[in-house]
Amino acid sequence: MKNNNSAYQQLHDHFDKIGELENIAEIAYWDEATMMPEGSGETRGKSLATLSGVIHELKTDPKIGVWLSKSEGNNSLDPWQKANVFEIRRIFDECSVIPVALAKELEQRSFQSEQAWRNYRADNDWSSMLPLLSSLVDLVREKAKTLGDVKGTNPYDALLDQYEPGMTSESIDQEFAKLKHFLPDFIEEVIKTQDRNKPKDLTGPFEVNKQRALGLQVMKSMGFDFDKGRLDVSHHPFCGGTPDDTRITTRYNEDSFEESLMGVIHETGHALYEQGLPTSWRNQPVGLARSMALHESQSLLMEMQACRSKEFLEFLTPSIQDTFAGDNAKDLSWSSENIQRLYLKVERGFIRVDADEATYPMHIILRFEMERDLINGDIEVKDIPELWDDKMLAYLGLTTKGNYRDGCLQDVHWPSGLFGYFPSYTIGAMTAAQLFRTATQSQSDILSAIGEGNFSPLVSWLNNHIHSRGSSVSFDQLLIDATGEPLNSTHFIEHLKSRYLEK
Amino acid sequence: MKNNNSAYQQLHDHFDKIGELENIAEIAYWDEATMMPEGSGETRGKSLATLSGVIHELKTDPKIGVWLSKSEGNNSLDPWQKANVFEIRRIFDECSVIPVALAKELEQRSFQSEQAWRNYRADNDWSSMLPLLSSLVDLVREKAKTLGDVKGTNPYDALLDQYEPGMTSESIDQEFAKLKHFLPDFIEEVIKTQDRNKPKDLTGPFEVNKQRALGLQVMKSMGFDFDKGRLDVSHHPFCGGTPDDTRITTRYNEDSFEESLMGVIHETGHALYEQGLPTSWRNQPVGLARSMALHESQSLLMEMQACRSKEFLEFLTPSIQDTFAGDNAKDLSWSSENIQRLYLKVERGFIRVDADEATYPMHIILRFEMERDLINGDIEVKDIPELWDDKMLAYLGLTTKGNYRDGCLQDVHWPSGLFGYFPSYTIGAMTAAQLFRTATQSQSDILSAIGEGNFSPLVSWLNNHIHSRGSSVSFDQLLIDATGEPLNSTHFIEHLKSRYLEK
Repeated sequence: MKNNNSAYQQLHDHFDKIGELENIAEIAYWDEATMMPEGSGETRGKSLATLSGVIHELKTDPKIGVWLSKSEGNNSLDPWQKANVFEIRRIFDECSVIPVALAKELEQRSFQSEQAWRNYRADNDWSSMLPLLSSLVDLVREKAKTLGDVKGTNPYDALLDQYEPGMTSESIDQEFAKLKHFLPDFIEEVIKTQDRNKPKDLTGPFEVNKQRALGLQVMKSMGFDFDKGRLDVSHHPFCGGTPDDTRITTRYNEDSFEESLMGVIHETGHALYEQGLPTSWRNQPVGLARSMALHESQSLLMEMQACRSKEFLEFLTPSIQDTFAGDNAKDLSWSSENIQRLYLKVERGFIRVDADEATYPMHIILRFEMERDLINGDIEVKDIPELWDDKMLAYLGLTTKGNYRDGCLQDVHWPSGLFGYFPSYTIGAMTAAQLFRTATQSQSDILSAIGEGNFSPLVSWLNNHIHSRGSSVSFDQLLIDATGEPLNSTHFIEHLKSRYLEK
Repeated sequence: MKNNNSAYQQLHDHFDKIGELENIAEIAYWDEATMMPEGSGETRGKSLATLSGVIHELKTDPKIGVWLSKSEGNNSLDPWQKANVFEIRRIFDECSVIPVALAKELEQRSFQSEQAWRNYRADNDWSSMLPLLSSLVDLVREKAKTLGDVKGTNPYDALLDQYEPGMTSESIDQEFAKLKHFLPDFIEEVIKTQDRNKPKDLTGPFEVNKQRALGLQVMKSMGFDFDKGRLDVSHHPFCGGTPDDTRITTRYNEDSFEESLMGVIHETGHALYEQGLPTSWRNQPVGLARSMALHESQSLLMEMQACRSKEFLEFLTPSIQDTFAGDNAKDLSWSSENIQRLYLKVERGFIRVDADEATYPMHIILRFEMERDLINGDIEVKDIPELWDDKMLAYLGLTTKGNYRDGCLQDVHWPSGLFGYFPSYTIGAMTAAQLFRTATQSQSDILSAIGEGNFSPLVSWLNNHIHSRGSSVSFDQLLIDATGEPLNSTHFIEHLKSRYLEK
């Protein structure tokens, strides 16, 4: 018994070490995106690769296998320790099964392909991208097959499982089918309704300093802990750092404050998840966020559910006016109604990252179907542009023929070797709707408090039901515990209907 | 032969890895001092300690010993490779000889003692600091003795050798004796002379943005490479980062711009050394800066020799006026003469870091004598306050009796376990004078260019004679090659006489 306990303790200590090195890597990644001078990129890339290598060596240390075997049969462990062992097993198997040579080649090719993509996208040059992406996909397929053989899944599901442990493309397809059925007509109807009452654009310039001040004010109301976090600027907004040092970024556009403000709110949602993770399990796998979709649910819950609500936008309007409107605060364009119309505008567009919450899932479903078939070998890279165009026409009524830049070359994911990640965005949106519905129905003060700029009741609910639970149970269990039912698209569909049609 | 070469290549690869991890650690240290939110300190401390541990393990890997033995007899290596082997031997022996348990205890006690010192200094509380410092000194003595036994030196010289390879307290004492003989009367005379023509204080407030803009402008003239570096703010100014990503900091005081501006110049001197290190030897020990004193010589050469020169201050005055003087630019207080008087004011004071170039060495000599005797066991920690007071009276005519805050508790070095470092400051000042004298005498355009804000001839001289040579030869050899003679105090003394008395 003592030996088994000490095996667990050794696992724990080993993953403390890994976690601490990962903390440093996170700060170096954040620095690269926010602070690093341009000319230092090459050196930083090499240094980070070396640190990754050290971390990978530690994660595949054969001693872990020995400690795991001893710990897995140890009944004296408490539930969190057992869950920790379960998570460590997942990490160990996943890292150990991929041959080092394949991992290295994947890393190099992904890097090259992503670098090349930046130019090829700008040049709308699919034919130059094709060979690079094809050989990258060959490697990803090899990895997916190896992982799938071990996990007993098809190749694509093996990749999916890295981001959404336990989820399958079949279960996702089932909920996505409902969205695919519901959304096209819904979008058509919303656009017609909104056409009758179009929002008026707000005209700037909007000073960066003022945008930042308003963003910080909203972050503060939301409960972001500035004693353990920061807000900065980067080209692509993200939430990085660590649970004890959480760093979000945004980007400012002097012609419009709307995107930056909602971006700050989105990233703050991610940050509150990180800052709410269980402090006594720092660095341990069981203490980490449960999945990418759950992470996205926390940002979308804040951005889409809480902060685009009538209640919050009415509360926020005076601050927006005070910050930007100057003498024009009385103009109709600065009214809460117009600001709501701006923030709830539904439009069919080419670009995923610019999409609203109603059209966004169609972009994801398109990508999910294609990457699943690609990784499972049912289609080839050369088929992508035509399929993309077909699906865009069918799902959003837009043609992307010859327009690769705004079509299949728009996202960084595939050129950087990331397959199996896209579904997390829409699973996150569904999860957000399901959680927000349960939270506001079970506690009537949550929505009224948001209407006063007070996020405490909401954050405390999320903290109890999601954040503080880390990875101690599965995604399914977490959702059942929090909402009484497994993930389903009903709440998301109900949310859309009630927000956009019942007025 | 092939085997020997490959042993060298393995050393090279191993130290590449170490260097890359150290690059990441440097960025994390910089971040801690400039960006990190306050509440994240504890986690960061642990994470950095873990990374240090990994680096230490790599530096003491027994394989290094095997590769070294094979490489040391390998005559096919070129001079830089041989020098690299020499440096690696030094690092390996130094790291390997200290037992891991002692190193860890030292690290922990230093951390605790430094933390405690912050409060005890503020509270002027020597009696609480005494036991902490005593037990820390016991550990440092143990380390020094262990190192000394291996190096064949006395304990203090073994510590000194870590910062100034090859230097001994005897050789330092010899030059310091000349300063100790010269400075007291000299200081007295300068103060009397300056009393006849006191500088007028410049009154602010001086906007931080303007101070920063002026600092950036000067950095640019000096040749700082902003494509591979940054200027930021920290509580204690420093030069950090890496040769490919060099990050200097300053702090701003709205009541005075003088310190911040000269601080930026000082740190830029350090930065130019880093940025000028040989690019083909990145990450290798032979490619690093030669010693702490040589590093300090580069900052002091810029700050004290080049930028407090009449030539440069006359050039800089219009920029200072444009930036800060507004309508008062014609006032005598904003004249170049007054700015020179402000920047060359000599005063006896309690605080080392506030001291001018004439009194500074006395602060260093006091500390050098005390830490040498302390580490060699000739005095005890409890004797420090009385000795400090005696020496301050003798060297600078000031009493610190009962005033620990401005006396023996003023510096962070001893409470954080740093002994043997203080001499580097004054060795640096002497080296700076010696290098600047040679540079300006051998190339007449250097000083005239500085008078036009053009540092290229100076930096290019430094680059050829110092920066680009890395650690390929010893400090002594470097100085002999650059100036024709070994380190001596004559040039520094001549510099002081000519600047302060011959007008």
